[in-house]
Amino acid sequence: MCQLLGMNCATPTDITFSFRGFSQRAGITSDHSDGFGIAFFEDKACRLFVDNQSAVESPIAELIRNYPIKSRNVIAHIRKATQGKITLENSHPFIRELWGRQWIFAHNGDLHGFDPKLTGKFTPVGNTDSERSFCYLLDQLVAKFGFVEPSLEEIFSVLEEISPKVAEYGTFNFCLSNGKALFSYATTKLHWIVREYPFKPARLIDLDVEVDFSAVTTPDDRVAVITTEPLTDNEQWQAYQPGEMILFQHGKPIQHATTHVERLAREAADPSLKRVTKADQY
Amino acid sequence: MCQLLGMNCATPTDITFSFRGFSQRAGITSDHSDGFGIAFFEDKACRLFVDNQSAVESPIAELIRNYPIKSRNVIAHIRKATQGKITLENSHPFIRELWGRQWIFAHNGDLHGFDPKLTGKFTPVGNTDSERSFCYLLDQLVAKFGFVEPSLEEIFSVLEEISPKVAEYGTFNFCLSNGKALFSYATTKLHWIVREYPFKPARLIDLDVEVDFSAVTTPDDRVAVITTEPLTDNEQWQAYQPGEMILFQHGKPIQHATTHVERLAREAADPSLKRVTKADQY
Repeated sequence: MCQLLGMNCATPTDITFSFRGFSQRAGITSDHSDGFGIAFFEDKACRLFVDNQSAVESPIAELIRNYPIKSRNVIAHIRKATQGKITLENSHPFIRELWGRQWIFAHNGDLHGFDPKLTGKFTPVGNTDSERSFCYLLDQLVAKFGFVEPSLEEIFSVLEEISPKVAEYGTFNFCLSNGKALFSYATTKLHWIVREYPFKPARLIDLDVEVDFSAVTTPDDRVAVITTEPLTDNEQWQAYQPGEMILFQHGKPIQHATTHVERLAREAADPSLKRVTKADQY
Repeated sequence: MCQLLGMNCATPTDITFSFRGFSQRAGITSDHSDGFGIAFFEDKACRLFVDNQSAVESPIAELIRNYPIKSRNVIAHIRKATQGKITLENSHPFIRELWGRQWIFAHNGDLHGFDPKLTGKFTPVGNTDSERSFCYLLDQLVAKFGFVEPSLEEIFSVLEEISPKVAEYGTFNFCLSNGKALFSYATTKLHWIVREYPFKPARLIDLDVEVDFSAVTTPDDRVAVITTEPLTDNEQWQAYQPGEMILFQHGKPIQHATTHVERLAREAADPSLKRVTKADQY
């Protein structure tokens, strides 16, 4: 399994504070120590850092904690390998280009027996269910819109339709960004928060660090943070409902949908109802 | 303009020695200080580091000089912006996935008026002639082979046919790798060397550093280094002929071709013959 961290901002913002807390979970406050990755968008392009060392020990993670890279869209992932090799090709986040933009995807959860026919336009490099689901989502977007870039709302409508179908194979919590906005979806666990004017102090759960955001921000700043488990203990994090999809842009939610909520709620109450087609291979 | 560095090895090798000398050219021994990038393959996947700071000052370049990442295929690039913005999306090397592998491309030279019709399968994220030529090469490979991965020899035969056509638009020196092998092509300037048993000392030109490779290698090691300008002054570097293409695998050249050599030689003797269709826009 793993943990996700996403950030979507109105103005380019560095993720140093959140990443410091988040990366503690890679061996100190939790045991997600089998590699990490983080992607920072700058407009349509993105920097992707991955390492198969833990985010506590990796020199690359150390660089990121100390070198503030400002970005409007960031996605990070720390991994606890339950099954499957710790290789670079299986490291989240994954990257693909579509419509002249990079796309970044990170997934939390396991999909069982998810092996859809892919067109070949996007082919997994590694052998995770996660990268396969990413390629499948992009394939579906191309099937719908061809090579002409649609609006965010049109993309949302396809993701809203497709994601519950993928979620039939297991747990499907993800963050997806094209540098313009951040799409998020949860079937079991994801939380979000928006920090905006008037800013307040925030205190990390995983590390004895507090930042008073009012001292380091301007009224134009606004930051949405999305994460598996809340990062601070003095802010009000919102839990995603099972099957909830949220699109963030300019540091705030701009579109919500709840998909197949009833079925997911039934399964949450009685896990034996969950459709599992074959054993986890990854 | 810019400078290229490629490495192809029989066994995973770190590029620390060559990169230390190469990165001096980003401000110390030369003025290629407008960003840098380096990609390290691990099997089919790759780590790509880019920064719009110079390779002398960038904390990311400093990390790479000190954190030996072992790889069989590496491509690096330092940039001197003659025209065009210094943005992440215009930073080499460029990355795309094809046939379930990442592909990495870096280019030295300017292409004038090169604006071919692309299918949409690969679309430039930035606005460089270089990324456009990369997308065009990949498009041509898909046009020929579809989504079924061909052999290296088959790929070579397409690149051998297409590269001279791109080179009609200007200078086209490149390194291209899919993690399995490294394709290189030069119309004006590129050099290569193979280091193998019995290894000897090598002394950098750009920095007062000498390494005795015989002390740090085994007889199984073999490394091919490809670079715009030779990196050492006590080794025998081979200059590419104009229009020469070389495929490296397992640390040695496995296939050579010379394309349109006569025309390029004529142009080298008399630059006024060179076909330039419109002013450099990038």
